[in-house]
Amino acid sequence: MAGFDDVIIAGIGHTEYSKDSGRSEMQLACEAALAAIDDAGLAPAAVDGMVTFTLDPNDELTLMRNLGIPELRYWSRTPHGGPGSNTMVQHAAAAVTAGVADAVLLYRAFNERSGRRFGQPNQRQSMPGLNWYLPFGVDTPAKSYALAFQRYMYEFGVTNEDFGRYSVVARKHAATNPNAWFYERPITLADHQASRWIVEPILRLLDMCQESDGGAALVVTRADRAADLRHPAVRVIAAADGHLVDGSVMYNYYHRDLAEFSEARFVARQLWDASGIGPAAVDVAMIYENMSPIVFLQLEAYGFCGRGEAKDFIAGGNIELDGVLPVNPHGGLLGEGYIHGVNNVIEGVRQVRGSAANQVANVEHALVAAGRSGLVLGRL
Amino acid sequence: MAGFDDVIIAGIGHTEYSKDSGRSEMQLACEAALAAIDDAGLAPAAVDGMVTFTLDPNDELTLMRNLGIPELRYWSRTPHGGPGSNTMVQHAAAAVTAGVADAVLLYRAFNERSGRRFGQPNQRQSMPGLNWYLPFGVDTPAKSYALAFQRYMYEFGVTNEDFGRYSVVARKHAATNPNAWFYERPITLADHQASRWIVEPILRLLDMCQESDGGAALVVTRADRAADLRHPAVRVIAAADGHLVDGSVMYNYYHRDLAEFSEARFVARQLWDASGIGPAAVDVAMIYENMSPIVFLQLEAYGFCGRGEAKDFIAGGNIELDGVLPVNPHGGLLGEGYIHGVNNVIEGVRQVRGSAANQVANVEHALVAAGRSGLVLGRL
Repeated sequence: MAGFDDVIIAGIGHTEYSKDSGRSEMQLACEAALAAIDDAGLAPAAVDGMVTFTLDPNDELTLMRNLGIPELRYWSRTPHGGPGSNTMVQHAAAAVTAGVADAVLLYRAFNERSGRRFGQPNQRQSMPGLNWYLPFGVDTPAKSYALAFQRYMYEFGVTNEDFGRYSVVARKHAATNPNAWFYERPITLADHQASRWIVEPILRLLDMCQESDGGAALVVTRADRAADLRHPAVRVIAAADGHLVDGSVMYNYYHRDLAEFSEARFVARQLWDASGIGPAAVDVAMIYENMSPIVFLQLEAYGFCGRGEAKDFIAGGNIELDGVLPVNPHGGLLGEGYIHGVNNVIEGVRQVRGSAANQVANVEHALVAAGRSGLVLGRL
Repeated sequence: MAGFDDVIIAGIGHTEYSKDSGRSEMQLACEAALAAIDDAGLAPAAVDGMVTFTLDPNDELTLMRNLGIPELRYWSRTPHGGPGSNTMVQHAAAAVTAGVADAVLLYRAFNERSGRRFGQPNQRQSMPGLNWYLPFGVDTPAKSYALAFQRYMYEFGVTNEDFGRYSVVARKHAATNPNAWFYERPITLADHQASRWIVEPILRLLDMCQESDGGAALVVTRADRAADLRHPAVRVIAAADGHLVDGSVMYNYYHRDLAEFSEARFVARQLWDASGIGPAAVDVAMIYENMSPIVFLQLEAYGFCGRGEAKDFIAGGNIELDGVLPVNPHGGLLGEGYIHGVNNVIEGVRQVRGSAANQVANVEHALVAAGRSGLVLGRL
């Protein structure tokens, strides 16, 4: 079971998503956190738990001092990367359910474009598995992911142009989202195909998520606080993590079948079990995309279409705002910004609240999928 | 509330505690983990959650592969240092209570003597607060803790000889614990007073915890599994964390009163509230002691004696095996070894099971105190 009866996301907050914030990462964390706490209608003193990523540079005790939070009874960090965006919610939901905290602040903030860029060649001391690939020249996320993406392309006859059709949709959505870095800047498939190769013949520049500066935060609390809130409460219907043996830090190099995302399939199974819904009941999906192909693999892992069918599912218009399954109405990490997936959770909350820039009608169930982790959000 | 009705510690495991393990930290983690899983009567495949410290070098995915754990549904890491030993149990207890995991492996392993020594001068990239003290020459834990300890000595007329009386007890206990590095090597107060100053006139060598190589692990699971276990189940009656604004990474430099341990007092309050017991009902206490004075501050924070009274409480024999409150019967971090406090939790489990080397009679409630965190363990 990964379901929660009495846990809500009560507040969301973020800075602008930029390429050069001009201020410290701690400042970004504070701004996002204060916005989320205020959005929940709470005072900082009500916060008694904190969750962030192991990769986050912002120390909890410093954040307490800066925000004026007097006491914490719970803190945790989520290992590894972007799936932590949902895992933070799982941690907080477990803490609130078990009564070890009442109101948990989730935060992630970085100068990931003007400071340390994840996309650059890098030895990853915090992710030991990755260093084994360095002797082979696999020194960026693009290169490491591309290995498995190429197998997927081979198995199902998928081309880079197919991937581009996702990018076009993401940028179309971002173009009408004022929070998005690429607001009012849509692209065509021709633009995508004209963008330079990052890993030929798999990934072009316009398949890649942004590198962003910014902060994003959430407040998770008990459902019985819903009456005090400034906005409609959003229930955490299910929150799941899924890690499989022979997984690697990032994606899939050792599983028997490199053309499927086994971890996402494992997460999906848990989410459907815990929520009692299936793919047909999902009204909108926020799908983590450090690179466009991973949307394809997750659409298939969650059963929105069959294996190898994502290219036709996307080409058929199904992921557009008026489609069967609107995907990333905010523009996703390609279009809106890359706050390590936390902005996807925020968009999930907005879609359930009914306050998104590109609002899907009557959202009862929002899926937030980030590979090794996932959420089903809904109305209280 | 920080209490748990249905959570037990089912397994414990550790390597030898040494000064030069002669093998990798991952190897130590695997040995400790396998021992704990086996001690619980489980197979690795039953483990579906993992918790460790943010400081731990051993990656979860590598550990899964090495141990043969097929799937994880939960993972988390505890920020900062040694209090994480108890915080791991709090995380796991919340996860099990909320149903996001059934059997959680807690681990900590390092070559902290033969590899990176925490006691050496160090810029702590993982603990940003500490670097502010570097310009003043405060570049080791001994120096940073000594500042507050000196205030405590001044306020209550405590001398280094008083601290030595704790060290003598810890070494006396270690001398009859075959797991202890200082097995069969007790010290006298004269030995303590003859040992060299680390920070004069506050801390001598024999006030300091060991630097150790080793691994330690626990398995936390649901109480309804107790029937299958190899050993008596140990209930997690309460598990609490407590972090206060104006705390620093290590100990207390900014609180109004430097001669008390405010965080420990906050943790104690939570533990008594959640467990329904008070200090008089504690049969044995494992108290984290990176340095001997911190035992004094915690005895007072938990109400085992009044403020400034710890020196008389200890001198009166109360913390010995036949005393009112036996403390660290395994020898603690000074006598047994320094596995970042996790060996204290293991001793707590053994004391409740009735299987400790220096067993206290009829233990119903064991306290494990580690400054910013604490546990009350008991029989199921």
